[in-house]
Amino acid sequence: MTGSERLLSEIREQPQVLERVRHAPGPAELGARLRERPLRLIRLAGHGTSDNAATYGVYAFAILAGLTAVRDSVSLRTYAGIQSPAAGDLAIGLSQSGQTPDIVAWLGQMRDAGATCVAITNEPESALAASADAVLALDAGAELSVAATKTYTAEVALLARLAAHAGGRGAELDAGLALTAERAVTALGELGPAVAETAESLVGADRLDVIGRGPELATARETALKLTEVCRLGTTAMTSTDLAHGPLAALDPGFPVWACAADDELFSALEDAAARIAATGAPLIAAGPAAGRLGGAQHVLEVPAPGVPVLSPLLTVLPAQLLARELAERKGLDPGAPRNLRKVTLAP
Amino acid sequence: MTGSERLLSEIREQPQVLERVRHAPGPAELGARLRERPLRLIRLAGHGTSDNAATYGVYAFAILAGLTAVRDSVSLRTYAGIQSPAAGDLAIGLSQSGQTPDIVAWLGQMRDAGATCVAITNEPESALAASADAVLALDAGAELSVAATKTYTAEVALLARLAAHAGGRGAELDAGLALTAERAVTALGELGPAVAETAESLVGADRLDVIGRGPELATARETALKLTEVCRLGTTAMTSTDLAHGPLAALDPGFPVWACAADDELFSALEDAAARIAATGAPLIAAGPAAGRLGGAQHVLEVPAPGVPVLSPLLTVLPAQLLARELAERKGLDPGAPRNLRKVTLAP
Repeated sequence: MTGSERLLSEIREQPQVLERVRHAPGPAELGARLRERPLRLIRLAGHGTSDNAATYGVYAFAILAGLTAVRDSVSLRTYAGIQSPAAGDLAIGLSQSGQTPDIVAWLGQMRDAGATCVAITNEPESALAASADAVLALDAGAELSVAATKTYTAEVALLARLAAHAGGRGAELDAGLALTAERAVTALGELGPAVAETAESLVGADRLDVIGRGPELATARETALKLTEVCRLGTTAMTSTDLAHGPLAALDPGFPVWACAADDELFSALEDAAARIAATGAPLIAAGPAAGRLGGAQHVLEVPAPGVPVLSPLLTVLPAQLLARELAERKGLDPGAPRNLRKVTLAP
Repeated sequence: MTGSERLLSEIREQPQVLERVRHAPGPAELGARLRERPLRLIRLAGHGTSDNAATYGVYAFAILAGLTAVRDSVSLRTYAGIQSPAAGDLAIGLSQSGQTPDIVAWLGQMRDAGATCVAITNEPESALAASADAVLALDAGAELSVAATKTYTAEVALLARLAAHAGGRGAELDAGLALTAERAVTALGELGPAVAETAESLVGADRLDVIGRGPELATARETALKLTEVCRLGTTAMTSTDLAHGPLAALDPGFPVWACAADDELFSALEDAAARIAATGAPLIAAGPAAGRLGGAQHVLEVPAPGVPVLSPLLTVLPAQLLARELAERKGLDPGAPRNLRKVTLAP
């Protein structure tokens, strides 16, 4: 199997991985325990793809459980030795490998500071898991491609389930996840022609802005990361509102924008951004369940509606993953082995 | 005065603005009041440059007062109607104009949710100020250039003073700020040749990564924003660790990296990143008090040491502001009036 075939195979495994996540007992049990006591703050930490999943967690805990969750500063604890009190907090460390050095160190320090510590990892025997009070295993199977795909959606789905069960909405979310996994099969089966056409349009691009708002900000960040690491594009992910506060000035017909469009309360903010983008002449690519409704998009990567609105990012990311592979091939790059990177990053 | 001259004049006003901020009574009074009661969480919100100042606030409150501060999600409250409890929280809305619609809406909703609300703005008669319990005025004078410079450093200095006074370290910080303002004069006087030489090297670039860690992550974000809005570069700001989790794959001799280098505990993380960058052949630009010590930098934009380490971002940002103007001129752009933007952004 070539690196490109392996990446495609991992992308295609996602519906089954989501089904496994749906049946995992951990999120329901831990969520129920979280309901029994007041939680001050949820702190999330991860790097790269896991940081993008943490971005999703910020929205999921607020929407599904009314809880405040934040992407914590890792460096404050691990380098500067700052020990702000964390008693009553929930700390969630995310790492596919469970080896990311400063995430392991951060979780240990959160434990010392009085937080309840959870590891979300594909390696339940890892160092990260060993320093946690509870482990939520991704159970995504071995992921060999450098670019994470199925472990990203597994992290997102686990966080959604944990938040929903903590908020007393577990049954509703779990049913929505079943439907979303089915619709991921549909999306993966139908996106081919639109992905190929959009990839062709990006062969000459060397930079790209990606916008999203609410839970789809996580998709915007993950889309940007995939296109950077697999296709060597210079990318910036931001909210649709941030675009108007500066980055709009750099747009022109050679600087495309990718919009992650969900059917939610934030669609109007995205529509406003789309109009501003159109005025600059920048090509607009729309991905997501509401992609077809976004005015002025030259390329539409529409996916089915999710089972529940908050799960939209599980589907909106699929065209980005497929396109990253397709565009890399058209650019003569190996999508399975981006240069300068390793699967397990041991950077400080 | 041309737009370019006006921008330069606003950049050069910063030492006096910092001196005015140092003498403002507001941060000391409010900081002292904050010491009297337990603060659960500090929530910061702003867009663009003000969001970058908020990034600084996250670190300043942790380092100077041991408090947890976060860049809050604006959209969750303003669009999705999520009302997570905020009683006992401090909410700080940042907006130069005081008119940014969703920041005004967010601060009002934080007040309804039980938070103590603070407005940091250059317009103390604005809508944002009207919905706050306390107003910290930037007192930066009129800022006419679209690209914010002196209001950014004023926001950073106000946040540092507020955090220090809340943490009982006000006198130390205020003395450090006096020294930092003096050293900003030195930096602005000496940076010219290095800025010109570095700008010349970037004329052909169309994308740039900017790295920093700890408080200098704010500078990385602000550097990226200035170079995007004034010079139309595609930029991504990230921590030095994030670079290794994907973006490293896109680097090559045509994709430069700008590193914000302070003399602090995080310098070793930056050194590791610099070695990884060198291996890709990407040109490295180092800015900040520790720029001269960063191995492998082709361009060094060194500034004096700040009065206290946490104020380093007030100096590290100066070469970025100067360079944005210089590079725009070399590219034939008007640094005073980036296209597609207005000074006051009323985007939803």
